[in-house]
Amino acid sequence: MTKYLDNYSDFNSIRYMDLNELNEFASEIRQFLIEKVSVTGGHLASNLGIVELTISLFNVFDFNKDKIVWDVGHQSYVHKVLTGRKEMFGTLRQFDGLSGFPKRDESQYDFFNTGHSSTSISAALGMARARDLKKQDSSIIAVIGDGALTGGMAMEALNDVGDNKSKLIIILNDNEMSISKNVGGVSSYLSEIRLDSGYNKLKTGVTTKLEKIPTVGKGMVNSIHKIKGGIKQIFVPGMFFEDMGIKYLGPIDGHNIKEMSKVLKMAKNFNGPVIIHTITKKGKGYPFAEKAPHKFHGVGPFNSCNGKINGSSGKSYSAAFGDEMINIAKDNPDVVAITAAMPEGTGLGGFAKQFPQRFFDVGIAEQHAVTMAAGMAVSGLKPVFAVYSTFLQRGYDQVLHDVALQNLPVVFAIDRAGIVGQDGETHQGIFDLSYLSHIPNMTIVSPKCVDELNVMLNFAVTANYPVAIRYPRGGDMANVHLSPIKNMEKGKWEVLQGIKGKIAILATGKMVQHAIIAKEQLLQNNIDCTVINSCFIKPIDTNLIDKLINDGINMVVTVEDNIINGGLGDLVLQYINKKNYNSTKVINLGFDDEFIPHGSVDMLYKTYGLDPKGIYNSIISAL
Amino acid sequence: MTKYLDNYSDFNSIRYMDLNELNEFASEIRQFLIEKVSVTGGHLASNLGIVELTISLFNVFDFNKDKIVWDVGHQSYVHKVLTGRKEMFGTLRQFDGLSGFPKRDESQYDFFNTGHSSTSISAALGMARARDLKKQDSSIIAVIGDGALTGGMAMEALNDVGDNKSKLIIILNDNEMSISKNVGGVSSYLSEIRLDSGYNKLKTGVTTKLEKIPTVGKGMVNSIHKIKGGIKQIFVPGMFFEDMGIKYLGPIDGHNIKEMSKVLKMAKNFNGPVIIHTITKKGKGYPFAEKAPHKFHGVGPFNSCNGKINGSSGKSYSAAFGDEMINIAKDNPDVVAITAAMPEGTGLGGFAKQFPQRFFDVGIAEQHAVTMAAGMAVSGLKPVFAVYSTFLQRGYDQVLHDVALQNLPVVFAIDRAGIVGQDGETHQGIFDLSYLSHIPNMTIVSPKCVDELNVMLNFAVTANYPVAIRYPRGGDMANVHLSPIKNMEKGKWEVLQGIKGKIAILATGKMVQHAIIAKEQLLQNNIDCTVINSCFIKPIDTNLIDKLINDGINMVVTVEDNIINGGLGDLVLQYINKKNYNSTKVINLGFDDEFIPHGSVDMLYKTYGLDPKGIYNSIISAL
Repeated sequence: MTKYLDNYSDFNSIRYMDLNELNEFASEIRQFLIEKVSVTGGHLASNLGIVELTISLFNVFDFNKDKIVWDVGHQSYVHKVLTGRKEMFGTLRQFDGLSGFPKRDESQYDFFNTGHSSTSISAALGMARARDLKKQDSSIIAVIGDGALTGGMAMEALNDVGDNKSKLIIILNDNEMSISKNVGGVSSYLSEIRLDSGYNKLKTGVTTKLEKIPTVGKGMVNSIHKIKGGIKQIFVPGMFFEDMGIKYLGPIDGHNIKEMSKVLKMAKNFNGPVIIHTITKKGKGYPFAEKAPHKFHGVGPFNSCNGKINGSSGKSYSAAFGDEMINIAKDNPDVVAITAAMPEGTGLGGFAKQFPQRFFDVGIAEQHAVTMAAGMAVSGLKPVFAVYSTFLQRGYDQVLHDVALQNLPVVFAIDRAGIVGQDGETHQGIFDLSYLSHIPNMTIVSPKCVDELNVMLNFAVTANYPVAIRYPRGGDMANVHLSPIKNMEKGKWEVLQGIKGKIAILATGKMVQHAIIAKEQLLQNNIDCTVINSCFIKPIDTNLIDKLINDGINMVVTVEDNIINGGLGDLVLQYINKKNYNSTKVINLGFDDEFIPHGSVDMLYKTYGLDPKGIYNSIISAL
Repeated sequence: MTKYLDNYSDFNSIRYMDLNELNEFASEIRQFLIEKVSVTGGHLASNLGIVELTISLFNVFDFNKDKIVWDVGHQSYVHKVLTGRKEMFGTLRQFDGLSGFPKRDESQYDFFNTGHSSTSISAALGMARARDLKKQDSSIIAVIGDGALTGGMAMEALNDVGDNKSKLIIILNDNEMSISKNVGGVSSYLSEIRLDSGYNKLKTGVTTKLEKIPTVGKGMVNSIHKIKGGIKQIFVPGMFFEDMGIKYLGPIDGHNIKEMSKVLKMAKNFNGPVIIHTITKKGKGYPFAEKAPHKFHGVGPFNSCNGKINGSSGKSYSAAFGDEMINIAKDNPDVVAITAAMPEGTGLGGFAKQFPQRFFDVGIAEQHAVTMAAGMAVSGLKPVFAVYSTFLQRGYDQVLHDVALQNLPVVFAIDRAGIVGQDGETHQGIFDLSYLSHIPNMTIVSPKCVDELNVMLNFAVTANYPVAIRYPRGGDMANVHLSPIKNMEKGKWEVLQGIKGKIAILATGKMVQHAIIAKEQLLQNNIDCTVINSCFIKPIDTNLIDKLINDGINMVVTVEDNIINGGLGDLVLQYINKKNYNSTKVINLGFDDEFIPHGSVDMLYKTYGLDPKGIYNSIISAL
């Protein structure tokens, strides 16, 4: 039984709690999160880091009229607890349950959906401009981590904010890591500020003086600025934000509710753009998460007593990729690896240790990563950019304009393709085939099993043109055992178990495993069929399609874990239409024209008819 | 007869020319550019601004081993003149002629293709890292304008450069405007530096002192940095670049070859990343271009004596869009306009003057523009983002993740869709249907004539979901006169001149005009057909397709100025396949899987079979 959380009803009460109550409340919420997330899995470390900051926000602002945008959004759990969703935490990230990210459909207090990094300042500025044009009175707040600040669009937004007189509060939540350790100039700049103790002491002095001034208004905050203006040249190793025209307040201890509330009140009353620089600790208050915050970033269920994360069986595609990259790099000195702030998630941790000179973590900067890779490729290197399917969306123009147009040998190792599960609609990797297949010069492959990824990676690093390899989250199915293809030849598919029957299932990636099981189920109904490993999504194997149809196949069923439009099935259909194979029925299985919500991977494939049974059913009903 | 240019053979000679010769050479090149571009059209102002800078680069560096990346690339004409392409300038931007941008296929001295903004630092950093890993010795240079610096990926790259010890030279070519006037915090920051005369005087003093030091090496440039370190806190209103870990030299007069060469030599010998801030004037030396640089940005042929640009007839889609935006804004106070540094090109100049509070130029920042619009839309505004098709590629993830996922009523006014002509493969707007049509919740329309754009714009600003309107460069064909559709209904196409014959041409956008002429040509061969204005690319009019087929149409020919994969024809084919209309032949006309080079719009449509005759021929050969 908790004193405050059990009796908590609505956030208006937070404005009337005293400091002791607020601190006690924070502890209770922290414990609540550890217990709940240990069962469901979720983003723990980022939320533990932001408990006091969130409480301070609710202490100072009134979200019946004020608005907040949580950058990325994986730190919005406390916000969700405080805005009526405490009881739903048992369903976190489960199908039809609470989303792990802000969702306008879920609550009127989620003001903007987030998921990808670095969008919050843009969205908040849009809201602020709307408020001004509509002559309303409210505070608009963006909360952004220091990692997200390396994303180019955050800088585009800051640039526009600096040009703008709109009242806007940006909270820079500086926790010295995004998903992994931050990289780059912005990061060093923030470290310098943090380390400058002279500045910190003086700042505290300034803040103490200001406490004595009764009204906190525009004039006062301007005078803060003057004091800061006087001291900043001496004490601060640069004034990045003020150079951009944004008032800077900080750094502030983000776990100190008293200090935070004070600074937030100042910012609330300042009539222009202001940035509050807070220092917080990811995983705060849970020693296991403090020690290894990246493990408790997006975590599965774990034992809350000892911090042990429940194990998963089988080798993951990410791990296989990382291992094979090390093998390849030993033989080929031109191979280098690039990540956009995902060294662990993409499996490149081992590579980074073994080949530090050939490993480049560029920060949350997919656009730059792609074009930097292009620059390496024109100079004779073989760059491999390991990136999640959903995040490569940020580099679409660069893939097209900087890599494909020059036909450069850049390898895109696209992890988390297909359904990613609990992270939900902002993170599903179901668009990559569609946004890549219409780009000239692109070659796209997908392995049917973990071991085949190795073969494909070796194929890709020896190609003299761009190659994208897409592979799913997790590992292989326990009950399907496939041998990897031996010799990859551009545009050549693999016939599994011979050409049989009148039906050909053309599956790609892990969907081949589903197709194999579907085939077995069909056989039990005395329907034989052919299963093809469509390992190349582009180019497709037109010779094999010709052969299948000549051999009497009259139904082609394509299966992919991607939006149908622009995917494998679409390319197959276009070819069959072009060749006037009028008597061949084409069935395209994949995702229709809709976003796919969160839930377990298995549940989602089942729901959308892409599990073995779903493939079986589609074929039966077409017969 | 010119003294130096006529006798110029190769760039090695430039390293041995004295200052007077170099200055004279610069004048000759400037005159050459004015004369040549007045005939062919092209990017004049940016090239006139960079004559001395380019000559200085060739004076100091040896591009047999050193490498340069020109950001955007529309300022590479002088580079082209100096690297063996002087005689080809009569073919500039014409089909099979000299490209207006750097092209690796065109010259070994074009080291990286450019076209879109803000890519140069990323590409150059990739080259520098490759050089380091291969233990080579050369200088890598990126030349980037101050406008391009507002693009997020340039900041992502700077951030990575600042983290990196690689030797790299970035030349910030600061001309106080990109295509239009710069906007934002970065711009004000640069202005402050420019205006700070105290700093400038001192800088000159520092430079003079350094001249007397015989060897210019690492130690010395480090000492420059110390001197600067001492003075910068007093004289410079911020140290943006040095905060990021990049040595800063400047500002330097970019038209002063002596000063430029001196600073370039310093940078060449510095063993780390350095930024040289040069000030140049767009249009320099040609009074008409100096006065109106945006008119001489990308310009058609003009009279070199009086600077009069040859007129074009008929109202452009851009102008119609701008006019109608003003009309709509008068009635609907929620409508606001957004541009990413293209107020004139998109036709929003008038709107900006009439509704300055409702006009937002965010700089070259398409990502931010899209998400900022999403923020406005959640707050009840009706944002219209006017953007070129090729540049919206930069905002793909934001359209999907921030607008479509929340189904927000943002209007994308996509100008320069289809073939843009002389700017060539980096600028052709032939991908937008493919990168938008697979995004759930998107509605995509395209007007068959200029007047129809007005109707569509009114439809779009009253929709409560995202709408993209795509329309081409230029205006209507002189010999086709069509009336705009009266009432737009979501997903409803327009039958032109009734359903006739066995063939239906489903054309979209300006291709309807081509289809109408093709129909007339078919009629002359006694073949009647139906022409449909497929004004909605998404959703397609499935009821009408059903009706056409029920009415006896057995050949459906789709026509679009877009890549076929993911376009209108693809969506039509998918539907016809799903409905098992096996006896209906589908022919998809559009661009195949290839990039389309530069040339006139008419020439390119003809070459790729999308002019009226090409449509006619495709139908005849299918019969």
